Amino acid sequence: MSHAVLVNGKPADTVSAADRGLMYGDGVFRTLLVRNGQPIAWARHLRKLAADCAALSLACPDAGDLLRDVKTLTADIPDCVIKLVVTRGVGNRGYAPPAPPRATRIALRSLLPGYSLAHADKGVAVRLCSVRLAHQPRLAGIKHLNRLENVLARMEWNDPAIAEGLMRDEAGNVVEGVMSNLFVCHNSALTTPDLSRCGVAGVTRERVLEWAARQGIRVEVKHLSLEEVLAADEVFLCNSVAGIWPVRELEGRAWNRGPLTAAAQDWLQQHDD
Amino acid sequence: MSHAVLVNGKPADTVSAADRGLMYGDGVFRTLLVRNGQPIAWARHLRKLAADCAALSLACPDAGDLLRDVKTLTADIPDCVIKLVVTRGVGNRGYAPPAPPRATRIALRSLLPGYSLAHADKGVAVRLCSVRLAHQPRLAGIKHLNRLENVLARMEWNDPAIAEGLMRDEAGNVVEGVMSNLFVCHNSALTTPDLSRCGVAGVTRERVLEWAARQGIRVEVKHLSLEEVLAADEVFLCNSVAGIWPVRELEGRAWNRGPLTAAAQDWLQQHDD
Repeated sequence: MSHAVLVNGKPADTVSAADRGLMYGDGVFRTLLVRNGQPIAWARHLRKLAADCAALSLACPDAGDLLRDVKTLTADIPDCVIKLVVTRGVGNRGYAPPAPPRATRIALRSLLPGYSLAHADKGVAVRLCSVRLAHQPRLAGIKHLNRLENVLARMEWNDPAIAEGLMRDEAGNVVEGVMSNLFVCHNSALTTPDLSRCGVAGVTRERVLEWAARQGIRVEVKHLSLEEVLAADEVFLCNSVAGIWPVRELEGRAWNRGPLTAAAQDWLQQHDD
Repeated sequence: MSHAVLVNGKPADTVSAADRGLMYGDGVFRTLLVRNGQPIAWARHLRKLAADCAALSLACPDAGDLLRDVKTLTADIPDCVIKLVVTRGVGNRGYAPPAPPRATRIALRSLLPGYSLAHADKGVAVRLCSVRLAHQPRLAGIKHLNRLENVLARMEWNDPAIAEGLMRDEAGNVVEGVMSNLFVCHNSALTTPDLSRCGVAGVTRERVLEWAARQGIRVEVKHLSLEEVLAADEVFLCNSVAGIWPVRELEGRAWNRGPLTAAAQDWLQQHDD
C-alpha cells in the first residue's frame, strides 16, 4: 500500500511545527472523491482551490503538481477520498507572512467513508446545531482552515443515527450543514442559502446549481429561514464525498425523497465533471 | 544551542500532517516572555490556557509538563519568547473528534523580537485595519488557532514605521490590535474594549486591569467607538512580549506618552506575576 500522505509531493507523515497552517489556520483545502483513479469534478476543484487561494492572497500550487499528488496516492487504491491542503507555509513568529511565502502543499488519502447506502435512498436524520456561524464576508464561501465553528457544531451530538447537523448564522438564517451544503425544493423551485456572509460554497453545490439551470428549474440563492426549510417539499444536503442525501427528518418534520432530489442524484451519478 | 521545538515534550521539528490543529485550527495557544529563565506571569498563562482549553472541551496538558517544556527550551537561552500550542491531536477525516482525543502539546522557542526601545518610550504609529472582526460569542476571548482575521489584517500593511493595526468589529467598535489589547485613558479613567463578542482577552490586559483596580483607578470594560479612542487623553496597546506601547499616532491624531501609561509600564516591569 502506497504512502497515505504527500507533503510538497514527497511521502511524509508530518509538516513543520512552524507551518502557518498549524499556527493560524492560514490556508485552504479541498476534499474530493476518487473513483477508478479519477478525481470527480477535478476541474471544478482546481478552480475553487485557485479562487480560495486568491481570496487569501495565497500562491496556488501548480495544477500538474496537484494532479500528480492525486495520481500517486491513488495508484493502488483507485477508490478513496483525497484531501488537498494548501497553507502559507513555514513562517516566523507573528502574523506577518514571510516575504516571499512558500506555500506548503499537503495531500492526504483516506478510505471511502462507510456511509449507509440508505442515506442516499431513504434520507438522513438531521439535527439543528446551536453554535451559530459568524458573519465574516471576507472569509465567506472559502474553504479555509479556520473551522472551529464546524468542530464545535459537530461536537454537539454523538448519536450515530444523526448523520448531519444544520448550522444557522447569527441572524438565525439556515446556512449549511456542518460538512455539507443545503438545498430546499418548494413548488418545483430550488433554493440554496446565500453564502456571502458565512458558510462554505462547495463544488457539489455548484454542480447542483448548474444542473438545475440546464434543466430549466427555477433556482434562488437567498437567505433562508428555518421556517422556510421546514415548509419545503424536499430538503437535501450535498458534498463531494457523500453526493446528495435527502433529509428525512428535522425538528419533528419528516420527508420522503422527492422527485427533484432523485433527479439531482441521478445527474450527479452520471456525470463526473 | 538546544532544540527550538518540543512536541509532546520531545525534540521535534514537525507534527503529524493529520493533526486537527492543522486541519481545522482546532486548538489554542499562549505566547510568553521568558526573562532570566523565568516565564513572566506563568500562573496567569497557565490559568488562561486551562480556561481556553475548557472553552473548546480540550484536555489541558499537565502544568508540570508545560513548565518542563519551557525550562528545557530556555536552559541555555534564558531570554526568549516561548509559544505553547495545544491541539485536539491527530484525528480521522471529518469534524468529529476521535474518542478519546489525545491532545498534541507543542512548545516553540523564538529569539526576542527586535522591537525598538523607542516603542515603549515614544510610542508607536498605528493604522486602522479594514478587515472587521466577526461576532462569535462562542470563540470570543479565546486565543484559539483560527486566526485568519488577524492574518488578513496584518497583510494590509508593509510599512515598518507602522508597528500595529487596530481592528474593529462588524458593528464598527474598536476591539483590539492585530497582536495586542487596547486601553484608552480619559479623565484619569481607563477603558478597554468588551471582548464578549470577538477579540482575544490577553494575559497582559488582565494584569493591567488588576493593576488599575489595586491603584483605585476607575476602569470600564465596554464597547468603544473609534471616536472615543480618538478623543482619549492616552491610548496604549499591550501584549505579553511587547509589554505596553503607547500609541503615538492614529488616523491623524497624535499623543505623547501619558502618566497612566507610564505608571502601568512601571508596574508591569516591576512585577512578574
